Amino acid sequence: MTNKATNITRVPHLVTAAHRCDRYGHRGGVLWFTGLPASGKSTLAYALEQRLFEAGYEVFAFNSARLRGGLNSDLGFSRDDRRENIRRAGELAAVMARAGVVVITAFISPYRADREAARAATGQGFHEIFLNPGVEICERRDGRDRYASARRGEIEDFTGISAPYEASEGCELEIDTGVVTAGEALDILDDYTARVMRPRP
Amino acid sequence: MTNKATNITRVPHLVTAAHRCDRYGHRGGVLWFTGLPASGKSTLAYALEQRLFEAGYEVFAFNSARLRGGLNSDLGFSRDDRRENIRRAGELAAVMARAGVVVITAFISPYRADREAARAATGQGFHEIFLNPGVEICERRDGRDRYASARRGEIEDFTGISAPYEASEGCELEIDTGVVTAGEALDILDDYTARVMRPRP
Repeated sequence: MTNKATNITRVPHLVTAAHRCDRYGHRGGVLWFTGLPASGKSTLAYALEQRLFEAGYEVFAFNSARLRGGLNSDLGFSRDDRRENIRRAGELAAVMARAGVVVITAFISPYRADREAARAATGQGFHEIFLNPGVEICERRDGRDRYASARRGEIEDFTGISAPYEASEGCELEIDTGVVTAGEALDILDDYTARVMRPRP
Repeated sequence: MTNKATNITRVPHLVTAAHRCDRYGHRGGVLWFTGLPASGKSTLAYALEQRLFEAGYEVFAFNSARLRGGLNSDLGFSRDDRRENIRRAGELAAVMARAGVVVITAFISPYRADREAARAATGQGFHEIFLNPGVEICERRDGRDRYASARRGEIEDFTGISAPYEASEGCELEIDTGVVTAGEALDILDDYTARVMRPRP
């Protein structure tokens, strides 16, 4: 995207990523959860936030609901608005990762190009994690009958039913949350985080 | 602002503000630096970030330049774009404050209504800090001749020359950075932060 700004003050951070890594014992980065509605993204994101917090990480989780109540409250569900929703989420995550935080995000983010834009905002340290139990299990687990409503045509552009999910070819981690329990998924994610965020000795 | 979202997952944070305050030894909040171009906002913001980091705070500073390279790269300097620039900055700061961070922001933010919107996003824990050496000193200190260019009409809508700065009636702290040295300003800000962010014994 073109940068329209022409009159801005550039001052370097005196506190560098290395200083923050020394203090916190881990790098900042983004664990980007993606998948169909009811695939377990928000539930696992907040459970992982708690697990990592208790293990001493600087960590923060947010999902679409959280941003749509604030930063993204001007956006709806058109293709353009979904793109902008993900773009801003990716930029927010990137800023927090630069602050040394392990950021966990939970967004359907069904379009490959949008996820790639989020990845580009953070650069190194971005990890796409695909929660993929398959659409049948998502539909069965959905507590709010959104899938049923979508099948009846009462919700438009519902991912998995009336709008596409473009699976990634290059995600860092894929978990079949139809086979793996929530507790097992947390163990996998905890191990993965330590492996990619902790500095190697 | 109306919330356009209708199809979102609400999951509560398991890690609360109180948990974070216990861990970090201070609350999250926003120190919102406002003032004319060249009033010292960015310089003091990054120096204060370093001071507070070394004192053990969770702290992160950002200014307009930083966001205009990413989150706000689609925005220019029209009245609407300035408002949106500040709105997003305020929402970003609010999210980071909720993560327990002392957020220091450096934005001219010349319009009272925009600063009030930023304040509303964070709620309690928002501190408006007006750096006010007066326009003559800002102009003399400006290393890039922006004031001179603005006087010649080469920069439009330049705050202090050809666009207004609406001084606040309710800022929490005002520092005359024309009288007070940078070191003294840092001491004032350091003391102020401890007073408002550290839990009272």
